[in-house]
Amino acid sequence: MDYFNAPGRNHLFVPGPVNIPDQIIRAMNRNNEDYRSPAIPALTKTLLEDVKKIFKTTTGTPFLIPKTGTGAWESALTNTLSPGDRIVSFLIGQFSLLWIDQQQRLNFNVDVVESEWGQGAKLDVLESKIASDTAHTIKAICIVHNETATGVTNNLAKVRQILDSYRHPALFIVDGVSSICALDFRMDEWGVDVAITGSQKALSLPTGIGIVVAGPKAIEASKTAKSLRVFFDWKDYLKFYQLGTYWPYTPSIHLLYGLRAALDLVFEEGLENVIARHNRLGTATRLAVEAWGLKNCTQKEEWHSDTVTAVVVPSYIDSAEIVRRAWKRYNLSLGLGLNKVAGKVFRIGHLGYLNELQLLGCLAGVEMILQDVGYPVKLGNGVAAASAYFKNTIPLIPSRI
Amino acid sequence: MDYFNAPGRNHLFVPGPVNIPDQIIRAMNRNNEDYRSPAIPALTKTLLEDVKKIFKTTTGTPFLIPKTGTGAWESALTNTLSPGDRIVSFLIGQFSLLWIDQQQRLNFNVDVVESEWGQGAKLDVLESKIASDTAHTIKAICIVHNETATGVTNNLAKVRQILDSYRHPALFIVDGVSSICALDFRMDEWGVDVAITGSQKALSLPTGIGIVVAGPKAIEASKTAKSLRVFFDWKDYLKFYQLGTYWPYTPSIHLLYGLRAALDLVFEEGLENVIARHNRLGTATRLAVEAWGLKNCTQKEEWHSDTVTAVVVPSYIDSAEIVRRAWKRYNLSLGLGLNKVAGKVFRIGHLGYLNELQLLGCLAGVEMILQDVGYPVKLGNGVAAASAYFKNTIPLIPSRI
Amino acid sequence: MDYFNAPGRNHLFVPGPVNIPDQIIRAMNRNNEDYRSPAIPALTKTLLEDVKKIFKTTTGTPFLIPKTGTGAWESALTNTLSPGDRIVSFLIGQFSLLWIDQQQRLNFNVDVVESEWGQGAKLDVLESKIASDTAHTIKAICIVHNETATGVTNNLAKVRQILDSYRHPALFIVDGVSSICALDFRMDEWGVDVAITGSQKALSLPTGIGIVVAGPKAIEASKTAKSLRVFFDWKDYLKFYQLGTYWPYTPSIHLLYGLRAALDLVFEEGLENVIARHNRLGTATRLAVEAWGLKNCTQKEEWHSDTVTAVVVPSYIDSAEIVRRAWKRYNLSLGLGLNKVAGKVFRIGHLGYLNELQLLGCLAGVEMILQDVGYPVKLGNGVAAASAYFKNTIPLIPSRI
Amino acid sequence: MDYFNAPGRNHLFVPGPVNIPDQIIRAMNRNNEDYRSPAIPALTKTLLEDVKKIFKTTTGTPFLIPKTGTGAWESALTNTLSPGDRIVSFLIGQFSLLWIDQQQRLNFNVDVVESEWGQGAKLDVLESKIASDTAHTIKAICIVHNETATGVTNNLAKVRQILDSYRHPALFIVDGVSSICALDFRMDEWGVDVAITGSQKALSLPTGIGIVVAGPKAIEASKTAKSLRVFFDWKDYLKFYQLGTYWPYTPSIHLLYGLRAALDLVFEEGLENVIARHNRLGTATRLAVEAWGLKNCTQKEEWHSDTVTAVVVPSYIDSAEIVRRAWKRYNLSLGLGLNKVAGKVFRIGHLGYLNELQLLGCLAGVEMILQDVGYPVKLGNGVAAASAYFKNTIPLIPSRI
Repeated sequence: MDYFNAPGRNHLFVPGPVNIPDQIIRAMNRNNEDYRSPAIPALTKTLLEDVKKIFKTTTGTPFLIPKTGTGAWESALTNTLSPGDRIVSFLIGQFSLLWIDQQQRLNFNVDVVESEWGQGAKLDVLESKIASDTAHTIKAICIVHNETATGVTNNLAKVRQILDSYRHPALFIVDGVSSICALDFRMDEWGVDVAITGSQKALSLPTGIGIVVAGPKAIEASKTAKSLRVFFDWKDYLKFYQLGTYWPYTPSIHLLYGLRAALDLVFEEGLENVIARHNRLGTATRLAVEAWGLKNCTQKEEWHSDTVTAVVVPSYIDSAEIVRRAWKRYNLSLGLGLNKVAGKVFRIGHLGYLNELQLLGCLAGVEMILQDVGYPVKLGNGVAAASAYFKNTIPLIPSRI
Repeated sequence: MDYFNAPGRNHLFVPGPVNIPDQIIRAMNRNNEDYRSPAIPALTKTLLEDVKKIFKTTTGTPFLIPKTGTGAWESALTNTLSPGDRIVSFLIGQFSLLWIDQQQRLNFNVDVVESEWGQGAKLDVLESKIASDTAHTIKAICIVHNETATGVTNNLAKVRQILDSYRHPALFIVDGVSSICALDFRMDEWGVDVAITGSQKALSLPTGIGIVVAGPKAIEASKTAKSLRVFFDWKDYLKFYQLGTYWPYTPSIHLLYGLRAALDLVFEEGLENVIARHNRLGTATRLAVEAWGLKNCTQKEEWHSDTVTAVVVPSYIDSAEIVRRAWKRYNLSLGLGLNKVAGKVFRIGHLGYLNELQLLGCLAGVEMILQDVGYPVKLGNGVAAASAYFKNTIPLIPSRI
Repeated sequence: MDYFNAPGRNHLFVPGPVNIPDQIIRAMNRNNEDYRSPAIPALTKTLLEDVKKIFKTTTGTPFLIPKTGTGAWESALTNTLSPGDRIVSFLIGQFSLLWIDQQQRLNFNVDVVESEWGQGAKLDVLESKIASDTAHTIKAICIVHNETATGVTNNLAKVRQILDSYRHPALFIVDGVSSICALDFRMDEWGVDVAITGSQKALSLPTGIGIVVAGPKAIEASKTAKSLRVFFDWKDYLKFYQLGTYWPYTPSIHLLYGLRAALDLVFEEGLENVIARHNRLGTATRLAVEAWGLKNCTQKEEWHSDTVTAVVVPSYIDSAEIVRRAWKRYNLSLGLGLNKVAGKVFRIGHLGYLNELQLLGCLAGVEMILQDVGYPVKLGNGVAAASAYFKNTIPLIPSRI
Repeated sequence: MDYFNAPGRNHLFVPGPVNIPDQIIRAMNRNNEDYRSPAIPALTKTLLEDVKKIFKTTTGTPFLIPKTGTGAWESALTNTLSPGDRIVSFLIGQFSLLWIDQQQRLNFNVDVVESEWGQGAKLDVLESKIASDTAHTIKAICIVHNETATGVTNNLAKVRQILDSYRHPALFIVDGVSSICALDFRMDEWGVDVAITGSQKALSLPTGIGIVVAGPKAIEASKTAKSLRVFFDWKDYLKFYQLGTYWPYTPSIHLLYGLRAALDLVFEEGLENVIARHNRLGTATRLAVEAWGLKNCTQKEEWHSDTVTAVVVPSYIDSAEIVRRAWKRYNLSLGLGLNKVAGKVFRIGHLGYLNELQLLGCLAGVEMILQDVGYPVKLGNGVAAASAYFKNTIPLIPSRI
């Protein structure tokens, strides 16, 4: 069932699911095991400890729930809030929109703060809402750290600062799906109460684990939150954590071993080096876009994302055609524009276990495709801009010096 | 992170997660892919068609939801029922108990019909309830086809017959987690409205796909069911089925390719041959238990399960010690007794892609362990009983004749 | 191209190629690499050091040559001997016969000492030849440690003792293909000059590395040996060892990583524990054969092999039919009788990363097959004999205590 | 034992061992099997038939011998020639030099025709030798189709034409290690008598199978050739071909399944498309080299190789430093200059299952490294030249149209 074979390696540059390192593929290449034997709890214990490190938290409680990011959202909300609770939520692109849709369907009272797509969350609006909410009717702030649809990174430190300025007790709930373990994320320092990510993003695993980390305030809130939940209920996990068997229901043995390998890779490279590498790839991509004379969908530098770049195409070009040709002719997988920016942007994901030459191959491909669809780019220009930057910034590979 | 290595192959005889055939391991040994490329929808289309065959339905709509059986339960309930709805549910062991716990926490009005553990669902009680429910206050019957904790198989045909006798419109919702694709299950013939299974059971995949198939009446019910749901909502799936892109959120590429391989294996062997093989393994296990002079937890032959056998140990033995020694000395994984039967039974799973000699190795191991813990079994007796049966029933392997 | 699929796991009980542990399969699950990068020499260095440990030598020089055991034989001979050289060689079964055929075709003057198949090498004949060879015309003694065709293990310590008694300088060349790393083998203590094994035997890798270890006297001999050789020439290896790049031509990257994993497994279990486990499996197999009322092809206990047992069938049975039925009906792979013992024996390999329950499954299968072909065995008897022995001898798994 | 990890994918651009397609990695991800069961002969039969197609022969007899190219050379020579036989052999680079060294050590009378490295075989010299050899003292012509050290492709059709012109019966023995299945090779049309390749080259497998195909004249010659040989002897193979069991000694099960997958991939893409893709990659590489202002080691266009390009660096640069930096800083594996061209050239392998964007990533890397080592290349220039060519020549991927 590999109907669509093409020679050579697929160049996977969507912002998730991302390339899986060979070390992880190997770690998952195994039979099932009894998850009630002593082996799996022992493994799980190391995972729960180590996952906290990539969230930069010592006080959080992690849950590795068998589901996707969408489920992780739901878990974050239903464990901490009750139907009718007022939450402030920022709509800045397709994924924040989907989350807001979920919030509304779960019967929360969602106070939507919308931005133009390509802009970050309106934190000034947040400030005025918080300032005026002396009655503390706002129970939670929900924000995506990195909007995957537009390549916009929000300033989470600022959110914390606003809440602190007004001593507002609202929960601070963060979608870190396309950020955590790739961008600088500091759960404890920023006082994030719930943060989530998915296995198929920066951790470079297959889809299947929604990682939710709950801070102490969130755990406390979960004791009284009235939203109905069973599969997503942290309580069941906490009970099994106490027992030392860890799993209220069957986990994926494969993803646990895969996660072990993924964390080992992160620590071997060094989390800060991982973040620096993503910054290097993001910067180079932006330089290439500039060299092509195209616009970044992200309107200001402060919002630039180091994990995905949404590139705006001229109005006479259908960006979906770029994505189609990339796949049909170059074995290159790019991200489509979604919803409001469908046809207007295509996305280059530079998330996960990628290196510079992989990105340069992708950029060289994009240049050819741009010509294919009639945009007058000069071949080699984007690559030159990106490699000029790389040339001065790539370090020697530590293990090979 | 393989702290607990032991020489040779682990003998995995828990009733899930079960042994993964090499063909499936190979199929999953791959990088991620863009799930929005044409390849994944094309693959998904074949899976949805073929999954129906193992449920023996032509009218059902399958959903391959990234979650475990616990999530599949929740999906079956919240999509078809509204809070407060009365459901009749049968408590016959740990898994039906957990499902009932879920039903109650989801605010349904659960009419629990309890049996002694080791007995099947009390269908006579069902009949009287149905007979008297002329007002049709019962909205659904929830029943496990095969209770994994006690090795009890319920008679689903009988449930349908009762409902039909009284022309009762209650939804017929079946947990087929440890039955479908191993025991005889007939969704259409038995008028099952929702049936679920999990990837890590008879299909022999890693944990991660909750397979839910909804019949037409269930789909109709989902349009008005008022239980809150988002991640589990069939509506989102149905919308993407219409679009032909199939996935409202990121699926596991690996499990999709794995499921393709799993279905291919089933069809290659023949579904009826798969069921016959499970019957052969189940029968042989029961003969061995008898030869050992031990009792099957399942109290009557009509309830005997072909996927798991719970073996009752004498009161002077702690069955958990059997499971521990199996793992510590023989690299054999057996199932613990759970809850009411903890310490009293151990379980031999004979579910999935197993053959006769694998089972005989397991039985030989159990014999030694029984001696280890002080039960006076004669070595070789159970194996002899099982192999005498096998000798007369194993067919030649069709591909090798 | 898996034409001959059968449900469940293949029970592989031929004496090579043997079952590959999952850890090794994982280690080999990778892309190629440049073997001239610093990584492969660094890896190779560890392998050469560690391989010596399983030969129990500190003075030997190992060569990991891309070939099978047949090539390893040729390498051992052509590097140390010159055409016309007189060698004493023991014919005790099919593999010693093939080696002698090779020796003759390579133009050595082979002094064949033949035993009845099922008996060990006639060391008394060796002694008389050595005693009378005061002129030292005998340049080498060639002997298989373990004859895989008949399950006969020769006494190598005795060979050394004979040579030493007469201060005879003949090279002592040993085929350890089905012994080294499974049976007790002591290169230095026994003064073995060249010893060989193959990757697909006790080391449990795929076929592809012929492992040859040459002692100092053999290395010295190689400087003057006149047999033509290029591919097999140690000189080219020694030159690249000096350079620190190790490989005169392209090695298999996969087998190098696989060998690393294989050696790690051996050291983790402990070489003496590996040998003890093989003794346990061999003893149990012999007890089962006895319980079946069948004869071991090996005629005396002193020659019993712990890696393979050749079982003699009654004259009215064709042993090849046993092997065929094993494969056709039970997914069990047994070894055929070869050449003189074709049709008369079948072989149970108990070599490699096997545990006790795996063997018991195999024995249970053999019992059914024996009945199938008309031999009146009582089912369960062999299993009972083997498990009675196991019950008293299997240790707890160290990592799981 | 992955000491030298680096983020992202290794860019493997040595001319062997080459990148292994995922399909092949999957096919080899398996346990051992009994090679004497019916499965392996059935598989082997298909391989022997299909291997002939990539050699473009219908009359040849293929041998899949467990060894490397060096062993394949030896097999070709010792099976067809006798010690002292005169052979004409062309020295044009490191690999032809090694082959000649082997020929001499095997006691053939080698008539070496040397070219400057970077030039093709001197076929005019061949013609004069053949013309004057009316006594037919020349028994064989040995020539590499593609010299991997210098990137020089010889004109084999011309060799045949010379032999035919003079009706000379010399055997025509071809090293096709870095050509067959990537360059246009026509065994039957060109009257090649023995042709060899290795699994780790165009077929994109691990190292381990030396593929030798012998034409009818070579098979005839093997009946009288007097070179000693056992492991390499075709006779043993032919005997087992007759028996239908195919293997005189244990093959690598993994490489057989891998070869099946490799051949399937070639036929799926189409052999002519594979050759065209290599021509596309070779041409683009040469255009990049030109754009960088550097010289191709290959001195004339007629000798240009489509599988490897040796790039001459200015005298003030050490080419080995380029290779070292590629690995240390960019996770890029390039080929060293060997022997006479050590330090003077580095090599870009464009052999195997590669696509255009992979090559462009490599070229972008080389540009940065050239700057690193002080060569004043303009970044992006080589990529631009290559992609301008690609843009006009890459076809749509057939399976994706």
